[in-house]
Amino acid sequence: MTARKEPMEAAPDFDRAVAEAIDSKTKPVGSLGRLESLAAQLARVQQTLAPKMERCKLTVFAGDHGIASAGVSAFPPEVTRQMLLNFLAGGAAANVMARALGVDFAVVDAGVTGLPVEHPRLVSRRIAAGTLNSLEQPAMSAEQCESALRAGSEAGGDGAHEAVCFGEMGIGNTSSASLVAAKILGLPIDRLVGSGTGLDAVGLDRKRRVLDAAAARTSAELDPSAALREYGGFESVMLAGAMLGAAQAGKLVLVDGFIATVSALAAARLSPEIMGNLVFAHRSAETGHSVVLEALGARPLLELDLRLGEGTGALLAWPLVRAAAAMLRDMASFESAGVSERK
Amino acid sequence: MTARKEPMEAAPDFDRAVAEAIDSKTKPVGSLGRLESLAAQLARVQQTLAPKMERCKLTVFAGDHGIASAGVSAFPPEVTRQMLLNFLAGGAAANVMARALGVDFAVVDAGVTGLPVEHPRLVSRRIAAGTLNSLEQPAMSAEQCESALRAGSEAGGDGAHEAVCFGEMGIGNTSSASLVAAKILGLPIDRLVGSGTGLDAVGLDRKRRVLDAAAARTSAELDPSAALREYGGFESVMLAGAMLGAAQAGKLVLVDGFIATVSALAAARLSPEIMGNLVFAHRSAETGHSVVLEALGARPLLELDLRLGEGTGALLAWPLVRAAAAMLRDMASFESAGVSERK
Repeated sequence: MTARKEPMEAAPDFDRAVAEAIDSKTKPVGSLGRLESLAAQLARVQQTLAPKMERCKLTVFAGDHGIASAGVSAFPPEVTRQMLLNFLAGGAAANVMARALGVDFAVVDAGVTGLPVEHPRLVSRRIAAGTLNSLEQPAMSAEQCESALRAGSEAGGDGAHEAVCFGEMGIGNTSSASLVAAKILGLPIDRLVGSGTGLDAVGLDRKRRVLDAAAARTSAELDPSAALREYGGFESVMLAGAMLGAAQAGKLVLVDGFIATVSALAAARLSPEIMGNLVFAHRSAETGHSVVLEALGARPLLELDLRLGEGTGALLAWPLVRAAAAMLRDMASFESAGVSERK
Repeated sequence: MTARKEPMEAAPDFDRAVAEAIDSKTKPVGSLGRLESLAAQLARVQQTLAPKMERCKLTVFAGDHGIASAGVSAFPPEVTRQMLLNFLAGGAAANVMARALGVDFAVVDAGVTGLPVEHPRLVSRRIAAGTLNSLEQPAMSAEQCESALRAGSEAGGDGAHEAVCFGEMGIGNTSSASLVAAKILGLPIDRLVGSGTGLDAVGLDRKRRVLDAAAARTSAELDPSAALREYGGFESVMLAGAMLGAAQAGKLVLVDGFIATVSALAAARLSPEIMGNLVFAHRSAETGHSVVLEALGARPLLELDLRLGEGTGALLAWPLVRAAAAMLRDMASFESAGVSERK
């Protein structure tokens, strides 16, 4: 990220120019609220007073979790693979919402259980056929973790889209994300456990017990690499890598819900300078999401009680990004439009 | 609205079918949160399990207010006309955001001060060259109010768009809207007064005193027609009529901020059955908006600290509507995609 060092050092002047440009637009100062701060962020990311936001892509990473065999989800583990096929057939929420919002779509096999799926539209970056069970041992080796980060970084930096969304699919991955977040933040695991895809009280109690035991296996706080290795998933580590690669390539990253935000936390601990490229899209209904957002100092744009993942919440922020860019790039100024300023 | 009577009587069966359709989609039950209730509303409005949301149009109504001469705004009254020209030139926030979101745009002169503006793209429905000063007398006659409602209804029902946004431009119109809302709700005016386009403390104090005096001219509670006549603006009355016409034509109406929501309040008091067609797009930063939303039992989709008007907040809800419709219409079911349901 050294390429961006100079503009970042010159930030005060540039930031003042951005603020003046926004305030010169034909609207009361501040009246577009959070779209104005969003527009300023887009200007900083692209280092221009005329940010362009024309193309967006959603990449969904799928992977299986060894810990799913401990019964931590309301759905059976085979659903990861079934949903991978659903993504390929275009029938999942992420597909139809991406189409409705004009966002390109890709799906990556990061490590789904069973034999590799053969499909012309599937991007195969399989690290292994699912992670190991982190209740008993590290979910993956250091080499696997590195490979997943690298594959993600390549995927994230690829293409000419100015903005990218990353989604995930993996039965058991709220459990994995709760563990990763608890270890990075040094928090008790119970503050990060929620009902995921919809556990009832009995199921949630079971999930809590399993995650307590898994968390007890390592020390209370881990560095981000160790947390990912011990408890991560191939899809969520790849997602963290994708955020790093996208930010490095100067793209805006729309951050989805709980799992994507935990990946963002890990990525930002590895490379703090990516924070300027991240837009936190929404606050999910999953318990731990607010805890992680707070740790990141992030206030998301939307609050729609979503808890699906797949990048669906990130997608919904894309039109806000487009609107914010258009405001800064295309609106007339008081001067250019001949509109009187305030008395 | 008698044409819709039969489907509404059959509502329980239809609502059950909609809920079953949403729950059969390949996602945990309820995991798309407020998009699910939005999808159900779209299904009810169009009376189909496959709602279609392809086209949206924003119509901005502009009009001047006699009460603006009492110094209730941070901007001089000539800004209404200047902004009308800005809309026609395509440089206002509403223009650029509509373009960015693929929404058609029209601007209506409902009664701007001065000679009529001549422009090929301007829709002229002028009631008069601005309202009278409601500090001293009714803002408009009963006939003018009726004409504005009728012109609005025609504009609102026109066209093949499945969804419509209505915006407004008129210096002084937060004052007008505060008075209309206070009188319809029988509330003290001070609960509804805010800083509008950005008054400072001195300006806000002056605005409060002017509105106190204007409110004292009539009884504490008025029926909606009387409230519109006494204190309304041509643009906001036309906007109320447009909501009535759009709902009558079976369109979905995306309701913008404070002024549009006060028009929705008046319209819903005149024809309560329109409520099913209204989507409250956002919660504005203007003080009175939350009071009126609460009176309507409405929980808006977005909260982005906007306080511009022009329909800009309504526009931002359009992508959510498209996504919700796509979810219900296009997503695979557990059965069709061969995905296992929860254990």
